[in-house]
Amino acid sequence: MNTAFINGGGVTSAAGFVAGVAQAAIKKPGRYDLALVYSQVPAVAAGVFTTNVFQAAPVVVCKKHLEKGQGMVRGFVVNSGCANACTGEPGLEDALSMTEAAGALVGCSGAEMLVASTGVIGVRLPMDRVLAGLKEAGKNCGVENGALAARAIMTTDTFAKEIAIQTEINGKKVTIGGMAKGSGMIHPNMATMLGFLTTDAAITPSCLQEVLQEANKDSFNMISVDGDTSTNDSLIILANGMAGNEEIKNPASPAFADFLAALRMVCAELAKMVARDGEGATKLMEVCVCGAATIEDARLGARAIVSSSLVKAALFGEDANWGRIICALGYSGASFDPALVDVYIGKLAVAQKGGGLVFDEEEARKILQEKTVPITVNLNNGENQATAWGCDLSYDYVKINADYRT
Amino acid sequence: MNTAFINGGGVTSAAGFVAGVAQAAIKKPGRYDLALVYSQVPAVAAGVFTTNVFQAAPVVVCKKHLEKGQGMVRGFVVNSGCANACTGEPGLEDALSMTEAAGALVGCSGAEMLVASTGVIGVRLPMDRVLAGLKEAGKNCGVENGALAARAIMTTDTFAKEIAIQTEINGKKVTIGGMAKGSGMIHPNMATMLGFLTTDAAITPSCLQEVLQEANKDSFNMISVDGDTSTNDSLIILANGMAGNEEIKNPASPAFADFLAALRMVCAELAKMVARDGEGATKLMEVCVCGAATIEDARLGARAIVSSSLVKAALFGEDANWGRIICALGYSGASFDPALVDVYIGKLAVAQKGGGLVFDEEEARKILQEKTVPITVNLNNGENQATAWGCDLSYDYVKINADYRT
Repeated sequence: MNTAFINGGGVTSAAGFVAGVAQAAIKKPGRYDLALVYSQVPAVAAGVFTTNVFQAAPVVVCKKHLEKGQGMVRGFVVNSGCANACTGEPGLEDALSMTEAAGALVGCSGAEMLVASTGVIGVRLPMDRVLAGLKEAGKNCGVENGALAARAIMTTDTFAKEIAIQTEINGKKVTIGGMAKGSGMIHPNMATMLGFLTTDAAITPSCLQEVLQEANKDSFNMISVDGDTSTNDSLIILANGMAGNEEIKNPASPAFADFLAALRMVCAELAKMVARDGEGATKLMEVCVCGAATIEDARLGARAIVSSSLVKAALFGEDANWGRIICALGYSGASFDPALVDVYIGKLAVAQKGGGLVFDEEEARKILQEKTVPITVNLNNGENQATAWGCDLSYDYVKINADYRT
Repeated sequence: MNTAFINGGGVTSAAGFVAGVAQAAIKKPGRYDLALVYSQVPAVAAGVFTTNVFQAAPVVVCKKHLEKGQGMVRGFVVNSGCANACTGEPGLEDALSMTEAAGALVGCSGAEMLVASTGVIGVRLPMDRVLAGLKEAGKNCGVENGALAARAIMTTDTFAKEIAIQTEINGKKVTIGGMAKGSGMIHPNMATMLGFLTTDAAITPSCLQEVLQEANKDSFNMISVDGDTSTNDSLIILANGMAGNEEIKNPASPAFADFLAALRMVCAELAKMVARDGEGATKLMEVCVCGAATIEDARLGARAIVSSSLVKAALFGEDANWGRIICALGYSGASFDPALVDVYIGKLAVAQKGGGLVFDEEEARKILQEKTVPITVNLNNGENQATAWGCDLSYDYVKINADYRT
């Protein structure tokens, strides 16, 4: 497989996808806050959604449309500035109005459109401005607007998150692109608030759902900013078949495996961007737990470490406090023998067989001052490993979240 | 039952208990950091300990001594400044040396003493200073040192946590006293790092273990500061029978129920002090989830809300962000119907039937400015309720934890 990142690529890199954007003044005027993305030819779609009992109206609508249409979807509309969550029946009607209006613009039924919202919970959408913005977005749709779409879905994000790669499936060039937004209310178990992927691969709806779930496990589900699983988390993928590859139909086929590997790369890169851009974050922590008896032990351990407030605060303070890493591992639920555990910060061994080592504190501090801090925990207990990503806990996280609504 | 708090009461309020303290310079000189507490007559003991896979040496020793001695224990020694966790076999020997030396001072075997440590993980105890301090503490033992003992076990705590109550069991006056330390690495599932209770009640070891576990469920296990379950969490109770009540032998007896009610009060008050004094905390949040189908649903919901970084940051910012309360409830694992949920901040209704209400933001802010903020969530789904306690997430939490080791 020959896979390469596409410079400046994003949600409109795959053949046949276009995006339109608008400044709809949903929360505040003067910024892009609405995006319409669709495939110019019929496409199939799949999605994974929040496990929160409170499911925002757009999540409810997406699930319904995916189920009813048996995966046939043309595109989606996204707004930032208002989550349309906990808004009851009227909120549900608002979400449906958005898909109806988007469908009319694209030339399909409302049921063939998906919808996502992000922002404050419990507030109704200003539907007059949303629908006016949608109309405007419909007028400027093009491949050149991928980057603006990635900007339009940001809330407290400090940079837009987009990526695309090109790979080969059965001898045909296939492109997978995507965009995501994150920042706060980010936690494993459908992690990012919103992620959107597009591809020109030909793939059946059931294979698309399966490949998305698999890729999600090792990417968006392995990041944490603050331990809060939101009401709106959605990861959606559209595939329109324009690459002309032989349709991927069999999860056991090499083509499926190739597509999964490529999709996993796209998802992992987007997930890392979300973790790095956690609210108030100054650095990315990349925690690999290896030597685990099972993949689930590795995942549990890695996620507990990136989620620990104490590990995160120590990372912010550039303090090699390995005791907190070990402590988080200890309550993670993973099975292992504490007397066998080794811990590394970067390549520096800081603990061995469950106990501390004398190490060069200055060297540790240098590693902790980098923008990306790798932490490795070897359970010495098996052959499985998993990586999770998180960020530090800074004064700014508190500042951003102390008075978010105003 | 006639129960009253004892003014200035603590771990030496129950008949027959004395405490000695020392400035052993374990981490830094010039502060009390070691306490010896024991019963002047034989006593029984019970304990609950951390569920972390990494168990600090003193936890291992306590469990062994409680098991071996079938609950016969005379006292305990506690130090702050060093957790004696992840210190391997040598750390275990240090903990045993402490119980041996304490036993020699008290006039019993080392196996009749318990031990607890709190402070930095992964560092060996300075045993010369610990043993010298212990000797000093042995010399000044008396009932007047209860308050100093509560001071000696503090780490980043800003105030000492002690309490005592007097109640009646089968017509006899019984006293229950206690002290605790908390502050960081505090999370439900054996929450406080260290809690010590003493009583002059006569009770069998098995009843004492059962009553402690029950009281713990609604108190220390219902608080959270930062979601991190420590390696050292220990809650220990000693009962010496000096009250002269008929021995409590039967968990189904009214005497057991009376004792449980009194113990629960002591534990809840101590737990609240720990939550209020969470690292960097400026206020206490008291979250009651009622109308739950089961007590476990109520507990899960209440604990998720007090543990949410976003709820905690909003509390710090005095922002009535009920959406985050609802969101935390949604991922708590509790079973309920989202369309039935009502939320109150103080007595102010802010959400009803899962959706937001228009409410007086100024009134909400006034309630949020108080030192104790009550939040009530009615699931309207049954008859069970539970209360959890937590604190806000402030700049100071980050500051305290960014560079804790130095």
